[in-house]
Amino acid sequence: MTTELEQQIAAAQEAVTKQGDTVRSLKASAKEGKAEKSEVDAAIQKLAELKLTLESKQKEFEKATGKVSSQSKEALRAALAGVLERRMFYIPSFKIYGSVAGFYDYGPPGCAIKQNMTQVWRTHFVLEENMLEVECPAVTPEVVLKASGHVDRFTDFMVTDVVTGECFRADHLLEGHLEALLEDKKNPVSPEKAKEIRDLLAGVGELKADTMEAALTEYDVRAPGTGNGISPPFAFNLMFKTSIGPKGDMVGYLRPETAQGIFVNFRDLLYYNGGKLPFAAAQIGNSYRNEISPRAGLLRVREFTQAEIEHFVNGDDKRHPKFSLVADLRPLLYSRELQMGEEKKAQPMSLGEAVSRGIIANETLAYFIGRTWLFFCKIGVNPARMRFRQHLQHEMAHYATDCWDGEVETTYGWVECVGLADRSAYDLKAHSAMSKIDLTAFEKFPEPRMEEVVKVVPNNKELGAVFKKDQKAVKEALEALDSSAAMDVKAKLEAGQTATVSNCDGQTFEIKAGMVEIKKVTEKVTGKTYTPSVIEPSFGIGRIMYCMFEHCYYTREGDETRAVMGFKPVVAPTKATVFPLVQKPALNDLAAKLSRELTAAGLSNLIDTTGNTIGKRYARTDEIGVPFAVTVDFQSVEGDGSVTLRERDSMTQVRVPASEVAGVVRDLVDDRTTWEAVSSKYPAQKASADEE
Amino acid sequence: MTTELEQQIAAAQEAVTKQGDTVRSLKASAKEGKAEKSEVDAAIQKLAELKLTLESKQKEFEKATGKVSSQSKEALRAALAGVLERRMFYIPSFKIYGSVAGFYDYGPPGCAIKQNMTQVWRTHFVLEENMLEVECPAVTPEVVLKASGHVDRFTDFMVTDVVTGECFRADHLLEGHLEALLEDKKNPVSPEKAKEIRDLLAGVGELKADTMEAALTEYDVRAPGTGNGISPPFAFNLMFKTSIGPKGDMVGYLRPETAQGIFVNFRDLLYYNGGKLPFAAAQIGNSYRNEISPRAGLLRVREFTQAEIEHFVNGDDKRHPKFSLVADLRPLLYSRELQMGEEKKAQPMSLGEAVSRGIIANETLAYFIGRTWLFFCKIGVNPARMRFRQHLQHEMAHYATDCWDGEVETTYGWVECVGLADRSAYDLKAHSAMSKIDLTAFEKFPEPRMEEVVKVVPNNKELGAVFKKDQKAVKEALEALDSSAAMDVKAKLEAGQTATVSNCDGQTFEIKAGMVEIKKVTEKVTGKTYTPSVIEPSFGIGRIMYCMFEHCYYTREGDETRAVMGFKPVVAPTKATVFPLVQKPALNDLAAKLSRELTAAGLSNLIDTTGNTIGKRYARTDEIGVPFAVTVDFQSVEGDGSVTLRERDSMTQVRVPASEVAGVVRDLVDDRTTWEAVSSKYPAQKASADEE
Repeated sequence: MTTELEQQIAAAQEAVTKQGDTVRSLKASAKEGKAEKSEVDAAIQKLAELKLTLESKQKEFEKATGKVSSQSKEALRAALAGVLERRMFYIPSFKIYGSVAGFYDYGPPGCAIKQNMTQVWRTHFVLEENMLEVECPAVTPEVVLKASGHVDRFTDFMVTDVVTGECFRADHLLEGHLEALLEDKKNPVSPEKAKEIRDLLAGVGELKADTMEAALTEYDVRAPGTGNGISPPFAFNLMFKTSIGPKGDMVGYLRPETAQGIFVNFRDLLYYNGGKLPFAAAQIGNSYRNEISPRAGLLRVREFTQAEIEHFVNGDDKRHPKFSLVADLRPLLYSRELQMGEEKKAQPMSLGEAVSRGIIANETLAYFIGRTWLFFCKIGVNPARMRFRQHLQHEMAHYATDCWDGEVETTYGWVECVGLADRSAYDLKAHSAMSKIDLTAFEKFPEPRMEEVVKVVPNNKELGAVFKKDQKAVKEALEALDSSAAMDVKAKLEAGQTATVSNCDGQTFEIKAGMVEIKKVTEKVTGKTYTPSVIEPSFGIGRIMYCMFEHCYYTREGDETRAVMGFKPVVAPTKATVFPLVQKPALNDLAAKLSRELTAAGLSNLIDTTGNTIGKRYARTDEIGVPFAVTVDFQSVEGDGSVTLRERDSMTQVRVPASEVAGVVRDLVDDRTTWEAVSSKYPAQKASADEE
Repeated sequence: MTTELEQQIAAAQEAVTKQGDTVRSLKASAKEGKAEKSEVDAAIQKLAELKLTLESKQKEFEKATGKVSSQSKEALRAALAGVLERRMFYIPSFKIYGSVAGFYDYGPPGCAIKQNMTQVWRTHFVLEENMLEVECPAVTPEVVLKASGHVDRFTDFMVTDVVTGECFRADHLLEGHLEALLEDKKNPVSPEKAKEIRDLLAGVGELKADTMEAALTEYDVRAPGTGNGISPPFAFNLMFKTSIGPKGDMVGYLRPETAQGIFVNFRDLLYYNGGKLPFAAAQIGNSYRNEISPRAGLLRVREFTQAEIEHFVNGDDKRHPKFSLVADLRPLLYSRELQMGEEKKAQPMSLGEAVSRGIIANETLAYFIGRTWLFFCKIGVNPARMRFRQHLQHEMAHYATDCWDGEVETTYGWVECVGLADRSAYDLKAHSAMSKIDLTAFEKFPEPRMEEVVKVVPNNKELGAVFKKDQKAVKEALEALDSSAAMDVKAKLEAGQTATVSNCDGQTFEIKAGMVEIKKVTEKVTGKTYTPSVIEPSFGIGRIMYCMFEHCYYTREGDETRAVMGFKPVVAPTKATVFPLVQKPALNDLAAKLSRELTAAGLSNLIDTTGNTIGKRYARTDEIGVPFAVTVDFQSVEGDGSVTLRERDSMTQVRVPASEVAGVVRDLVDDRTTWEAVSSKYPAQKASADEE
């Protein structure tokens, strides 16, 4: 029965969406005199009826099953998508040419929110933490991404429909197929098989070409839609490739992440910072990934904005001087242990405890988890629906020490919005090896120390005689030996054996006694040279925006058709609207004056002189999440000069002198005051029934 | 004699630059204990001497010639470049891999200035003019740029060295060659030849492939450096090409300008704006041009930030409601007439006069010239060194009505930073033709009018019989006829002739009497459908930044080694520094507290507890253009609790209560108060001799 209901809900949802389109196009025609008002009204009436049908079906389902239906998730998502597209928060790019998957345009409110959010990010991280912000190009020469490993390894497995040639991500196909098997009620799999499938599902992301191919074959995965056979999986590089310069001989890529721009600048940034560590650099900019099958709106796109931080620190000391400021925060942590346990549920835990119990690897990583959590709270993500999930051992790159993803719960499940990784010294070492440029830092000891060091003194004459033109390469290979490797060579040579050394180009040389002198000496050492570790918090701005949209969206109590975007004032695209209560010159003039004052205070605002009912005007501004509304009435121009100021979520109103209103809104937006404080300072104004 | 002097100046400049590098690397070594302080001091002493030599040579030259030498321009540029690179305003990208021409990274101060500047732009244009801001992807499918003409025509002529294969821009090569001929004192050209060369020079940008080839041949232009022959010129498309999606069959380009993203969204933006015109949309984002030979630092790069506005307006009425607000501004205008005249010099003229005399085509274009001028003043470009140059008739695209470039005077000459163009309805018509989507607007008349209109009624039966499957195409071609074309067809048919019509795919059809009825009827018309004109102000942010750097750079009176970047506070990367006068815990604590208060007020600031002399600390902050410095001394912690606040350019100081200092700086940065007002409110403090 529930399946039938679900189908009815889906049909009802589709009908609502279609009728919404009809209403919009009729309205546009009416404006051009090509449709009658009565037609428009009838269409709106029909839309309201369809919405009621949908709602009652959903309630019926929830009653019957005791749970929120996936259909109702779909309904929420569709309703939100309706608002987001209709009010042009974002829309598919190149629409008039039929669009291209994975590309979106931000319209005016989306663009403003993105700006506001990145400004909050910049203040919260760059300004408050004194980070060094940089901006590097997206077009990147191949050598940089060869060093970082992206040219060789930034791939997804792809399969093609052997008949149509259509492309699919192998992991998505396998996952979808396995999930369908588990959910198939008609042909249920055995408990043993179910366990096998679940284990395979948990590890799909880690499959190699051969194991992926074996799995696809074993489960007879076929191309969706056609049911045709599929090709064996092959690695597809996700970078957009181009060519730099007029000759066509320099390969370039669009960067797949902003981080590399910071790494290649490490030496200059260290100099800029007076040679001192730790320090953090940050970059906000666009990255590009030629996804095989973009999907889920803003969640998987081909061009997106990242905000990345690289915090450089001595690997021997990852304490953070400001850790105490976040130690008592209690975000939801979903540690490795909890993921492997019975309940599989994140738990709140203080960051101080997580570090002291060794759950989070070090203070600096935990500090950034705390700061990230505060950032999400600031921009309006519900902290009860956000967790930090630790990477399981097999999910992490071999060089990484500890990784946590900031995930937000949405109708798509838990969405990864931030990655926080302790990447050790991997990146700087990789670029140093490729560029042959020293990317180390020097830590000066407070006092010079006497230390026993291993000295390697090549015998140039002997090396020249034996190795001829390779003399220099052998010498460098010897001098590059670290202490313990040098002592191994020494031991071998003293035992009358030969030893081999190799340089970074992979050449190997055979060393015999007499070619080199290796000795321990006691020296005055003033400091230590080391390659810094890097702790990397990496934010996907588009994903965070989408999650925030879901958390802010609600409908007015008792009226499911009245959508509200409950944006935090600091994020809201428009901070205030100004309405003259009715269309009169005196009221319009004061409204225009207040609008100018808001603008002068740096507050984006809209003036609405349409003369629609106040209720209708509120409904329009609720949809784009305007937090404050100023209404000018006769008392404003003839009486005491006060205006009505209304707060969106509580719908409560106060009377504020017109001359003070811009300042009050500025203080509210900047969090210098609260609506509670404003409400107790100024007299309340009761809303009339028709206003809401 | 002056040539000899110029060579000496160039040599002296090179010596200064080299010695500067030596000093920096010695300082770095000294920090790691690898160089002695005495070595560093000696190198600094040598640098100072070399600078004195350079300076005296330059003065000698100026005295001998009575003009500022091009060498002194070079010197200024080199000195500025030294500061910009040393303090990491911007540096060549991918330095550790040897860099790639035409790509730059913004370091911390450059990045902050760019942010501040785009924020000023956003407030000045988007917020104050209520524009619709959008953000579209850089990766663009081919069809969009095919429609805009970029795929076919966004090219430069290139020639190659026939031996080495090196690539050059043909126009640059020709220009350089011709200029050298004119300046050749040893073999002076005849006055007639000189005139011919100057005429050719003025039109280099307009040469076609054949005329360019003829000119290169006539003047025997050869490859620079090698002197080898060059290939004939050929068109090289400047767009970076890539491929979208996994199949490799969808060609994409990186957008060469942000404007197209706005045009393709016109229909949605018009709907967003309630169907009303005029309105403006804006976009700030990166654009990409694969320049043949990038040069001149930030002035010609391959990836750059644009800020573009598309103001959509009814072509019949280009008045602007806010024009009176700019009508009395008097920027330097360099009209077509002045460019063709004797003096060849821009003149100040009020925008009101320029419009009424028909010099600027319309109010809206003039309004944006005025707003652009105000923007440049706000961010610190010297208005006396900025002009608006009108395009000569042959410089403009055939569809353009009027174009003006905002140009700024620098050591590179006049640099085009902004283009302001009235592009008529060209862009929307091009996209409408390619996409087959209606991109018109509808203007509703205040009252419906009775108008005589031409009705075209195709005879479907007859068309079907004659044209078979082409019936629909013929019908559309007939219905697309405008009134006068339709009347021509009518006249021909009535005269017993046939008429031809063609559709937008270029098919042509022969029409005979009986296939269509064409008649004039009087109808009630409620409004007019039209394709809006567009007025486009387009800003190159990097170029504006560089010009601003040149205008803000100066050296302290009497000390040519002390560089100051005189940034406007709103643009300055760091708003204030906080210095404890000496290293004492009480002073350090108060300094740290003041720094936190500045941060809380959203003011970027640096705290410098190095214990260097105040003079040295000022010198460091002058170089990155910090406008205000707060010094904490014993009186601040033991006396009246006041601190010293110093303004960078005047170097004057006042005593301000510590608790007020963050607020005072905030007001100064936001232009809510002036330094004059602050100086008269708070007691002055005389600077001691060693401080400056």
